[in-house]
Amino acid sequence: MAQTPVLVILAGGANTRFWPLREKSLYHFMGETLFEKQLKVYAAVGYHEAIIVANPDNRDLIAQTLAEAHLPIAYDIVVQTQPIGMGNALLQTREKLAAKDYPPIYVCQVNDVVESTLHQKMIEAYQTQSARSYLAGYRVQKYFPGGYLSIQGDGQIVGIIEKPGAGNEPSDLVNIVAHIHTDTHTLLDKIQALYDGGHPRDDHYEAAMAQMMEETRFACVSYDGAWHPIKYPWHVLDVTHFYLSQIKEQKISPDAKIYGNAQISGNVQIEAGAKVFGGASIVGPAYIGANAIIGNGALVRESMVGAGSIIGHVSEIARSYLGRNIKAHRAVILDSVFEEDINFSAGCITANWRIDQGNVKSTVKGERIDTGREKLGVIVGAGAFIGIQSGTMPGVKIGTRGEVGAFTNLTSDLLDDERIYSVQEVRRVPATGKAKKEG
Amino acid sequence: MAQTPVLVILAGGANTRFWPLREKSLYHFMGETLFEKQLKVYAAVGYHEAIIVANPDNRDLIAQTLAEAHLPIAYDIVVQTQPIGMGNALLQTREKLAAKDYPPIYVCQVNDVVESTLHQKMIEAYQTQSARSYLAGYRVQKYFPGGYLSIQGDGQIVGIIEKPGAGNEPSDLVNIVAHIHTDTHTLLDKIQALYDGGHPRDDHYEAAMAQMMEETRFACVSYDGAWHPIKYPWHVLDVTHFYLSQIKEQKISPDAKIYGNAQISGNVQIEAGAKVFGGASIVGPAYIGANAIIGNGALVRESMVGAGSIIGHVSEIARSYLGRNIKAHRAVILDSVFEEDINFSAGCITANWRIDQGNVKSTVKGERIDTGREKLGVIVGAGAFIGIQSGTMPGVKIGTRGEVGAFTNLTSDLLDDERIYSVQEVRRVPATGKAKKEG
Amino acid sequence: MAQTPVLVILAGGANTRFWPLREKSLYHFMGETLFEKQLKVYAAVGYHEAIIVANPDNRDLIAQTLAEAHLPIAYDIVVQTQPIGMGNALLQTREKLAAKDYPPIYVCQVNDVVESTLHQKMIEAYQTQSARSYLAGYRVQKYFPGGYLSIQGDGQIVGIIEKPGAGNEPSDLVNIVAHIHTDTHTLLDKIQALYDGGHPRDDHYEAAMAQMMEETRFACVSYDGAWHPIKYPWHVLDVTHFYLSQIKEQKISPDAKIYGNAQISGNVQIEAGAKVFGGASIVGPAYIGANAIIGNGALVRESMVGAGSIIGHVSEIARSYLGRNIKAHRAVILDSVFEEDINFSAGCITANWRIDQGNVKSTVKGERIDTGREKLGVIVGAGAFIGIQSGTMPGVKIGTRGEVGAFTNLTSDLLDDERIYSVQEVRRVPATGKAKKEG
Repeated sequence: MAQTPVLVILAGGANTRFWPLREKSLYHFMGETLFEKQLKVYAAVGYHEAIIVANPDNRDLIAQTLAEAHLPIAYDIVVQTQPIGMGNALLQTREKLAAKDYPPIYVCQVNDVVESTLHQKMIEAYQTQSARSYLAGYRVQKYFPGGYLSIQGDGQIVGIIEKPGAGNEPSDLVNIVAHIHTDTHTLLDKIQALYDGGHPRDDHYEAAMAQMMEETRFACVSYDGAWHPIKYPWHVLDVTHFYLSQIKEQKISPDAKIYGNAQISGNVQIEAGAKVFGGASIVGPAYIGANAIIGNGALVRESMVGAGSIIGHVSEIARSYLGRNIKAHRAVILDSVFEEDINFSAGCITANWRIDQGNVKSTVKGERIDTGREKLGVIVGAGAFIGIQSGTMPGVKIGTRGEVGAFTNLTSDLLDDERIYSVQEVRRVPATGKAKKEG
Repeated sequence: MAQTPVLVILAGGANTRFWPLREKSLYHFMGETLFEKQLKVYAAVGYHEAIIVANPDNRDLIAQTLAEAHLPIAYDIVVQTQPIGMGNALLQTREKLAAKDYPPIYVCQVNDVVESTLHQKMIEAYQTQSARSYLAGYRVQKYFPGGYLSIQGDGQIVGIIEKPGAGNEPSDLVNIVAHIHTDTHTLLDKIQALYDGGHPRDDHYEAAMAQMMEETRFACVSYDGAWHPIKYPWHVLDVTHFYLSQIKEQKISPDAKIYGNAQISGNVQIEAGAKVFGGASIVGPAYIGANAIIGNGALVRESMVGAGSIIGHVSEIARSYLGRNIKAHRAVILDSVFEEDINFSAGCITANWRIDQGNVKSTVKGERIDTGREKLGVIVGAGAFIGIQSGTMPGVKIGTRGEVGAFTNLTSDLLDDERIYSVQEVRRVPATGKAKKEG
Repeated sequence: MAQTPVLVILAGGANTRFWPLREKSLYHFMGETLFEKQLKVYAAVGYHEAIIVANPDNRDLIAQTLAEAHLPIAYDIVVQTQPIGMGNALLQTREKLAAKDYPPIYVCQVNDVVESTLHQKMIEAYQTQSARSYLAGYRVQKYFPGGYLSIQGDGQIVGIIEKPGAGNEPSDLVNIVAHIHTDTHTLLDKIQALYDGGHPRDDHYEAAMAQMMEETRFACVSYDGAWHPIKYPWHVLDVTHFYLSQIKEQKISPDAKIYGNAQISGNVQIEAGAKVFGGASIVGPAYIGANAIIGNGALVRESMVGAGSIIGHVSEIARSYLGRNIKAHRAVILDSVFEEDINFSAGCITANWRIDQGNVKSTVKGERIDTGREKLGVIVGAGAFIGIQSGTMPGVKIGTRGEVGAFTNLTSDLLDDERIYSVQEVRRVPATGKAKKEG
């Protein structure tokens, strides 16, 4: 059997469009960071070595987090100092790969969440076929603005056509970053040559592959399972849903406490130390983290509630991601993402639906974009505080440590470390003197 | 036994004071339109033929609705083209009655909701006595601004005194439209003559009866049961209460689903397909329509919830009429009428009580009128949308397809197809930087 | 055994810093006024005679209340006509004491709530030792701005140092008003002489004791139990907590009604006629007064709910004092004091926590003072009415019969008989015409 490829995990991408959320690779899902979850999946499929390409900002955080996770896979972390393309990212692995005598590699992105079957299909193709490279082809039903694989004959990829426009697709297979290359040395040489030669665009990696396709066989591994690339903050909801759907039974820790009239239905996972008080309902799929408290009469459905969070009396949490240490006191949280250490005071509500029933829009780097979601609540950065009786319009975002005063209807984004509050016009007059005393 | 009278059902009255609600005769109560319910009551008492006097606006709607209802009574529909009086309405039936050789008739209004005992008493009087006409006399305890029956001797009606003023009443019996006439031909002739002769007021029917009273015997059939004429929109609440009080036992469809900890108490009727989730309470008398959903922890008491409605988690619905397809998400709805296809978003509340404890007033055709109710919430027209955290002051009304933005306190009526929204004054400053992370 | 001292209970202090709450000695705790509770404690320890020093404003109210209470202790009420010091208050008892031939006295304040052990220790010291007077010394852990006892040798008090400043305390024992004097005649003479001689400050009582300390033995009775002097309105919360902590078991009246799914946990006392509806939770320590109603799904924890109060569906009451006849309709009431006859409408919330996590401040007689509490909600005077969707910022107060309009964020105190309301800026435009009808 051929040598198992070395994983090359790209984790150096920018997070700017992910604001107000932070490092996406370290997002907690069901008690684990995304990076841990991904590495465990790779390990389960059979990979045992990885080279991680981080950036200067997240390198230490990733290193520390992974060190604490005690993962069943060996890894090195290299750093891409400037965000100048995927080709450049791959070049950072050269030294490590050279030391291993240029083994085959499996190039992935940490923020692409897929089913483990993709990885299995990739390794099977590599082990049973004789192509130089293997690229995953994600089968799409309708036009997607990505790179389409141009296929010839018995599955040979002869090109990747970027955003051909609807109707001009060469196939229904889109290139996603799940690539096995056996001739690592040549690939890196070609990429290096393109950088050295002043290649005018930032697609050095794709251009290098295009050159190789002319000379050697690139095989397509088609895939039609789940694919959730995390780019915008609301993508966390898709990944939340993906991981929740992997809970296949009710798993309640013996160290969790479920009080009298609480109802747990469906595939629900509840961790140690959690308490679910009387009258509360947890409707699966749902995840309740360690030491979280679900108050009397609260309703949690299709949501993750992070460790240490407190969901107050008769709060409702639906289709949402709540990170660690979220305090929601009599809140309604729908289709929303709350990073961590957030106070969402009594009476606060996230509107999740436009009155004109159009898709919810959100502002990213100054531009209004269609989120593609009919229902979307709020995205809240870490450490934020929202006062009583407030609310958020669909698709707004609250920056890290943002503060929203009481009685405030947040209709546009709040910056990091910014405070917004509403000022009421009030009048003071003599009382009517008829305030009712009984009845 | 005498020939059963032919019902003449007046259904052509205007709905202007009923705004924002629409055709009152087709209001749904417990899964049936008012018209169906009325015709079924008549049929049960023994009537088998009816002539319905509609107006040009509601004729087709009534025809279609009744056709779909497959009623145990034969009926014709005639149209009164102009709203020029009850006498004119009766004249529209002439052709149909002539074809039946002028049978005795029982004149009723579809929007007068009474107990079936009234109809029974009317037909019994007609079958056992020998008067020319029989008029119902509604026994009142205190002055009511209507027409009082002037009675002589052994129950003969010798006149109807309109609004005599308190203290001047000739009896304690008020004329309500439940009249059996045996000499139909003469009645119609006299009405026609009054129209032809340019009678100066629009009381041709009453004037014709006054002429006949001088010549023949009009007998009074006294009645002291329920009488709920529907004129103003809040009258729907009285009729709702009336029909709810006719539920005499708990009737839960075997095709309804009542989850674990839900509590159903008292006389409650729940239709097929309805779901009542855990922790919800339904306190009778109450009606839950087909396929309606009562969310976890919700409380419904003394109310009707129409088919397909969704009452969200911990909502409260009390003493209210909710038509079909009402979505109330964490709402408090008290003493209110919601027509149909309405979205009442999370955190919305209907105030139902004045701080000075006076009767609630409402604006009808530009005039403030006392509703006579100490508690009254909101009246909402079909297709309206109310955003999160909003509320309504007692007695306000929302027009058809009206839209109320988030955080809005509706203090006066909203027109059909009008949108109102509140604009907050907000300030943005640096955050305090002390947002609490724990505790 | 020595003669039991006569209680001299000082109850004539002003209530101005207690605003908007009223006569503090008649505050109801668990169905009894404070005065009743205090007298019952004294009686249980062995006291059987009391002289109460009232003021002109509260004299009749106290007399009437105590007469109705049928207490196991004999008492006279005297009146201090002007608030000119504790010495003057004591002089008002002279006539009554002279008539009893100047018995030993035990001077206490009705608004000092302590454990009965203090009174026991005082009487034991008096019965077993031979000092002229006995003063309680409240042991403090950190500096308290009061009068410190200066102790010599075997527990002899040689002086009281007022507010010595941190680090200069002569002991860790603070003077609280629990004083037994055996030489009543001399004490009163000395106080009288100071008044007659134009003593420049209002500490005649302390000055008289200081003179006596030079000549005779004053013994200290140290105490480290609970001590809750009631001065500011939020002190009611401390006393509430104190009395709640004395409930040692679950005591539910057989005449209370607890419905199906209601949950009562911990040390909870529920009086006759109270109703706790399904899904409600009462978490001890808690007290539910006679005929109070706890609605479906409501949560009451660490709180007192006064007789006749109605806590609506899914309301939350935590760590609060609610007097009689409070109507809280879907409210969130935290760390708050509600006097009586108050309407707190649906959707109202008391914020109890500052965003900067500092101690809550409140305004007393025009001055901002630190309440010493990290969590404090609102203080509401009797007869107030708060409209729907309103809220209160931490530490604000609402005067007697104050009225807060709907949708109002109360950020500063509301006077007695004052009304405040918010005025929204609203706009009316054509509806979007897209209001969603289904889904």
